Amino acid sequence: MKPVRRKLDTRNGRVDLSHGSGGRAMAQLIADIFHDAFDNDWLRRNDDQATLDAQEGRLVMTTDGYVVSPLFFPGGDIGSLSVHGTINDIAMAGATPKYLSASFIIEEGFALGDLKRIAQSMGDASRAAGVPIVTGDTKVVERGKADGVFISTAGVGVLPDGLSLSSDGARPGDAVLVSGSMGDHGVAIMSRRENLEFGVEILSDSAALHGLTAAMIGAAGGALRVMRDPTRGGLAAALNEIAHQSNVGFTINEELIPVKPQVAAACEFLGLDPLYVANEGKLMAICAPQATETLLNAMRAHPLGREAALIGHVVEDERNFVEMTTRFGGGRIVDWLSGEQLPRIC
Amino acid sequence: MKPVRRKLDTRNGRVDLSHGSGGRAMAQLIADIFHDAFDNDWLRRNDDQATLDAQEGRLVMTTDGYVVSPLFFPGGDIGSLSVHGTINDIAMAGATPKYLSASFIIEEGFALGDLKRIAQSMGDASRAAGVPIVTGDTKVVERGKADGVFISTAGVGVLPDGLSLSSDGARPGDAVLVSGSMGDHGVAIMSRRENLEFGVEILSDSAALHGLTAAMIGAAGGALRVMRDPTRGGLAAALNEIAHQSNVGFTINEELIPVKPQVAAACEFLGLDPLYVANEGKLMAICAPQATETLLNAMRAHPLGREAALIGHVVEDERNFVEMTTRFGGGRIVDWLSGEQLPRIC
Ligand SMILES: Nc1ncnc2c1ncn2[C@@H]1O[C@H](COP(=O)(O)OP(=O)(O)OP(=O)(O)O)[C@@H](O)[C@H]1O
Ligand SMILES: Nc1ncnc2c1ncn2[C@@H]1O[C@H](COP(=O)(O)OP(=O)(O)OP(=O)(O)O)[C@@H](O)[C@H]1O
Ligand SMILES: [Mg+2]
Ligand SMILES: [Mg+2]
Ligand SMILES: [Mg+2]
Ligand SMILES: [Mg+2]
Ligand SMILES: [Mg+2]
Ligand SMILES: [Mg+2]
Repeated sequence: MKPVRRKLDTRNGRVDLSHGSGGRAMAQLIADIFHDAFDNDWLRRNDDQATLDAQEGRLVMTTDGYVVSPLFFPGGDIGSLSVHGTINDIAMAGATPKYLSASFIIEEGFALGDLKRIAQSMGDASRAAGVPIVTGDTKVVERGKADGVFISTAGVGVLPDGLSLSSDGARPGDAVLVSGSMGDHGVAIMSRRENLEFGVEILSDSAALHGLTAAMIGAAGGALRVMRDPTRGGLAAALNEIAHQSNVGFTINEELIPVKPQVAAACEFLGLDPLYVANEGKLMAICAPQATETLLNAMRAHPLGREAALIGHVVEDERNFVEMTTRFGGGRIVDWLSGEQLPRIC
Repeated sequence: MKPVRRKLDTRNGRVDLSHGSGGRAMAQLIADIFHDAFDNDWLRRNDDQATLDAQEGRLVMTTDGYVVSPLFFPGGDIGSLSVHGTINDIAMAGATPKYLSASFIIEEGFALGDLKRIAQSMGDASRAAGVPIVTGDTKVVERGKADGVFISTAGVGVLPDGLSLSSDGARPGDAVLVSGSMGDHGVAIMSRRENLEFGVEILSDSAALHGLTAAMIGAAGGALRVMRDPTRGGLAAALNEIAHQSNVGFTINEELIPVKPQVAAACEFLGLDPLYVANEGKLMAICAPQATETLLNAMRAHPLGREAALIGHVVEDERNFVEMTTRFGGGRIVDWLSGEQLPRIC
């Protein structure tokens, strides 16, 4: 005899503390919302952990927490974001993402319907990417002790032999490429938060980049030095981190950096610089100079890299500066973000 | 030139939103608090992910979120708990835990000193267990949108060939063992919350069990059917879940279940049943009958299994009941927890 179960009321129901306390209500929430949305053989076993096929090659592991506000935004939601972001951090190593885990921290009173929508969106993103969510966890905290729902995903991938990308790999003379326009995700969130409209709706670029990175590795292989998804802190933070870690400098050209006109306009209005704004479906790549054309072509041939562009070069610089030639021909140091903040962007 | 850094003020300083925004303040927080505490080669690379040596055998992956309140409690804190809990879920598969990830969600205003203490405790627990924290993430949310700090850890382990433990593996006739006294962790938390004293201080049993499980596998090998750490919902939830998943029943004997006198007294006072109270350093094991003595001896020879006990048997039962002979000789069905809750125990 299975435990008696009333159907979860995903129309009007709300999460309560019993959904996190290890009893029947929790088992039902997990089955009806999470396992239903993520459905796969690993979850169906209901063990405390998932047992996975061993993979050839080195492993790659990563984690990110997602606290984005609002939970639903133009172009995505916290669920799809939490799948894409973690896949991308694996892909940036040149690895093939294989498995995800998902840990939910839910505020008491959160609408079951919204939780279901988020779980479905995660499941959809995970299936579209071919990377299953094989294990999870659910905790519930009292009203006022969280903000709707927070999700932490972790991911495991496999790194093919011979490939070694790391943030200390940039060499003077290398080319710096981006896969498309900068700032879309952060501006989509801010516009929604501030209830702004800029003619064309600004959508988050949230996307899983492992297909693009596989194409890039196929084309450029060993000539690839570093890949990085410019998330929090944007392109500016990514470049500065790599400058320090590789002990080099960068010269980039503002005119070459793709920024959508509506994103530029919104940034102007919001007092933001698109170089500091988070992206969730873009990457920056550094490659040996001779591979630049090949790599750019491979990127542009992929749907998520159509607007790929060469934006500058790695230079010798003991100060590890990121120098930018501005649209007006002047020069400017692109430092790390220090003053203003964009909290809860991802 | 490295970015200029003032030292973090871990005496009086507090986390602010800039510590989560991808800029210099975040880099400093991660370096001075987390990498300092967890120090290892993977973190030192500062990549978006950790690259790990490939392991022989199948992989095991798990995750848990930790929202325990209070953050510091007798016998542990959220940091050590988040290491032990995730290690244990890997160990319950019979696997060797290898790597951990840690995702932090921190409330604005949280004391840097407390964060440092938690990180140090995680680092200590991880080193003591020999399982490094190889990658992490840090998010900060506004005051009032979280409760101090939440941690989600994920873990990866390696499963030796030939071993296959799963919650559907219990067979009628099998023996049911526990590694020690039930209820210590939950009661330690509740006593601290309610400011109760019971003569002897009640300490959480929080501990990493992979040494004990390795000893058990060494002794009993293929005769082991299921291992489970009875966390939220306690022994009662663990037995009921396995009963359903293996389609069996259990008969257990209350007199044989170890419960410390001070825990029994506290449960009495708090209106709790120790069978439903969370443990964080105990396991329940089910084994083929002929291996019972060998397994018990192996458990008792390990410091974390000294009070191991045989508490009952698996029986054929289509209703999947857990039946208990009480201390007074009566019979009782031990159902899942349904009514009262113990929120934020882990
Ligand atoms: N949000 C979720 N999405 C997918 N699977 C989940 C989710 N929450 C829990 N699960 C799955 O449900 C099962 C039970 O999870 P549970 O957290 O109760 O186990 P546990 O980690 O052993 O217990 P505890 O969290 O109390 O330590 C596991 O198989 C787990 O992977
Ligand atoms: N709490 C933490 N403990 C240990 N390491 C951490 C922690 N937070 C971040 N790190 C490490 O710091 C580095 C930078 O992390 P960060 O989160 O900025 O990278 P990212 O995931 O690529 O960016 P984002 O989170 O914006 O997507 C990584 O190497 C990460 O493992
Ligand atoms: Mg990331
Ligand atoms: Mg769990
Ligand atoms: Mg990244
Ligand atoms: Mg657990
Ligand atoms: Mg991160
Ligand atoms: Mg468990």
